Amino acid sequence: MKPNFTLRLRIFNLNCWGIPYLSKRRAERMKRLGDFLNRESFDLALLEEVWSEQDFQHLRQKLLPTYPAAHYFRSGIIGSGLCVFSKHPIQEFTQHVYTLNGYPYMIHHGDWFCGKAVGLLVLHLSGLVLNVYVTHLHAEYNRQKDIYLTHRVAQAWELAQFIHHTSKKADVVLLCGDLNLHPKDLGCRLLKEWTGLHDAYLETRDFKGSEEGCTMVPENCYVNQRELEPFPFGIRIDYVLYKAVSGFYISCKTLRTTTGHDPHSGSPLSDHEALMATLCVRHSPPQHTPSPTHGPEGSQLISVLKEAWRELDLGVAQARWWATFASYVIGLGLLLLAFLCALAAGGGVREVAILLWTPSVGLLLGAGAVYLFHMQEAKGLSGARAELQHVLGRAREAQDSGPESRPALLLGQQEGDGTEEQ
Amino acid sequence: MKPNFTLRLRIFNLNCWGIPYLSKRRAERMKRLGDFLNRESFDLALLEEVWSEQDFQHLRQKLLPTYPAAHYFRSGIIGSGLCVFSKHPIQEFTQHVYTLNGYPYMIHHGDWFCGKAVGLLVLHLSGLVLNVYVTHLHAEYNRQKDIYLTHRVAQAWELAQFIHHTSKKADVVLLCGDLNLHPKDLGCRLLKEWTGLHDAYLETRDFKGSEEGCTMVPENCYVNQRELEPFPFGIRIDYVLYKAVSGFYISCKTLRTTTGHDPHSGSPLSDHEALMATLCVRHSPPQHTPSPTHGPEGSQLISVLKEAWRELDLGVAQARWWATFASYVIGLGLLLLAFLCALAAGGGVREVAILLWTPSVGLLLGAGAVYLFHMQEAKGLSGARAELQHVLGRAREAQDSGPESRPALLLGQQEGDGTEEQ
Repeated sequence: MKPNFTLRLRIFNLNCWGIPYLSKRRAERMKRLGDFLNRESFDLALLEEVWSEQDFQHLRQKLLPTYPAAHYFRSGIIGSGLCVFSKHPIQEFTQHVYTLNGYPYMIHHGDWFCGKAVGLLVLHLSGLVLNVYVTHLHAEYNRQKDIYLTHRVAQAWELAQFIHHTSKKADVVLLCGDLNLHPKDLGCRLLKEWTGLHDAYLETRDFKGSEEGCTMVPENCYVNQRELEPFPFGIRIDYVLYKAVSGFYISCKTLRTTTGHDPHSGSPLSDHEALMATLCVRHSPPQHTPSPTHGPEGSQLISVLKEAWRELDLGVAQARWWATFASYVIGLGLLLLAFLCALAAGGGVREVAILLWTPSVGLLLGAGAVYLFHMQEAKGLSGARAELQHVLGRAREAQDSGPESRPALLLGQQEGDGTEEQ
Repeated sequence: MKPNFTLRLRIFNLNCWGIPYLSKRRAERMKRLGDFLNRESFDLALLEEVWSEQDFQHLRQKLLPTYPAAHYFRSGIIGSGLCVFSKHPIQEFTQHVYTLNGYPYMIHHGDWFCGKAVGLLVLHLSGLVLNVYVTHLHAEYNRQKDIYLTHRVAQAWELAQFIHHTSKKADVVLLCGDLNLHPKDLGCRLLKEWTGLHDAYLETRDFKGSEEGCTMVPENCYVNQRELEPFPFGIRIDYVLYKAVSGFYISCKTLRTTTGHDPHSGSPLSDHEALMATLCVRHSPPQHTPSPTHGPEGSQLISVLKEAWRELDLGVAQARWWATFASYVIGLGLLLLAFLCALAAGGGVREVAILLWTPSVGLLLGAGAVYLFHMQEAKGLSGARAELQHVLGRAREAQDSGPESRPALLLGQQEGDGTEEQ
């Protein structure tokens, strides 16, 4: 490879808000999205919330000449909603479904039914191995009282671990998607610290788009304005993250977002804003000193790991509390049922007893399901906590043996992390 | 590294049959297992079916001086049953829970409640990166009419993909566990063809143990003799599989199995036989020509991929059939419920109507759960089928462009696959 080798990548990311029957003007927006993607001819278009496989198939037909390769990631009951269109051949793909993803009884939120996942594509471009990840984490419905916080932290950890273990031979790693995490949120920091990924918005010197890079903005007519009230500019929860390893250097030349409108017509493509990044992969070392985005890395990693460990530990305790509570309800339900059977057999208030039979059987089955679910939740959280604790132990050891040990800790993952400033 | 460098690894694998309350003489067997492992001082002991975390903790206490590193893989409701004890420090670990793992309503089989998984350990030994995988696939309850066949094939594929994507930078890959697959079964062939792993039993020249390397033998007093009737020597479903990449060569110097008895006292350690392998990793090329275990590799891979694709396709159709059937039952249940409500309101056979209310609500909820479950099953199988189809397409392309393309297909996975004959 020549020393002046440069690979330019144009990336598009959008949470499409494609819920059948519920999302407004879905068909028309999908049509316009297809037109836009064809016109712009990105290297890769990564989409989330394409919940209907038919929408994907329509897009696929339309985009075939410009994006010959495409994949739809199927999982859960509804699907992961993730799909990808690529100008270049996809060498390999696979997916990892998150162990924890909300609660089945929160039907009105529906995340549990989706089977939220991370999709991986491996591309070979100009002799480089490119690992591209696309994901969508559990939504945040109430920031003040977020009952899904632990699950989102566990998902961020699983995502980070999946990237860590599957990208060891990649030259370039790219993660796009709707993380449902603000930049300073625990899950976001954990993900970035453990994978070493850099945030295109923070790294680029050429940004044009919404204020503060927000991807849900009050100007967008599909956005629930009340939810955005505490955030006058909106929120930034969709990301383009990247890193280069093994002697390559990557930078974000330009980053654009839509600003509540379709870039061509006036109406927006989704309730989220699209991200459009131009990335540059080079073989030569950076001309500038890399920005010290991470400060004293070892201690930051340890601090975020500790914080995540505490959050998961709290989650384990809570899951066990619910399982115990459900087991008491099961006991009560069984007593009630025995009492009702005795009443029905004895005559007297027989009709009432029979009438109460249905709700008490329901109570029993419901409590049984809740018990099983939270047992599984506790197991899943304990598993993540154990992995985290192990990494924390090793990070502490690395810190004790001096700063040069960090590369050993992240062996095969961050060797010569090459992110250059513009 | 010196040219005459040799790494010797002594590996132990056992499905421990550790079901609380159900497995015979569990505590006493676990005690003897601990004594045996301490005495033998293997490099790695990989265990399956350690269903009780307390058993793991007891073993951990006992084995701490000989095996300072240990990990228990938590998942599902009961747990994955997997754990590992290592003489060497474990650098990293993570786990992947299989998307499909039987049916929740097959309570008497119980696999669904376990959260069957594959655990990964990364070890650094003498400068080598060793990826060790331990797993336990869905059990086979009826070989003639195996309703779990598709799930086991999907699990074998997920396992192969997990190994493929996480071992790209490993020098040595080792997989141990109870695959619940006979050597010629589709899942076993798929796993071996796609990962390039070699079977210690077939490769070693120094084998001592049960006839034909069987790991469930009629001599074992805990084995259900009726189930083994069609197999006079027993069945071989537990494996030690390995490969070396990046210029290293691996061989199995010796392989031993127990033969229905504890190697020291008379009574067996489990209903399965233990596998004890001595592996040798070298830097020098093999002295003999490697055994042509794979024949014309490209065509064999294509043929097994095709076979697996057909099996998954059948599974998708069947899952959809069940979902459709359940949706009809839901419709009928709703009609019945409306009819009962009308009857109860109208008087007359009111008591009967109220009495029938419980089973019809139960029917409705049950059918709803079955519908959701099989929708999710269909999505999971479709996802695996799509991955498989993609690999199949690339394998065909590679075959069309000549035999030298296979390394490109398995890029980063089989480069210079170094398995030497004894």
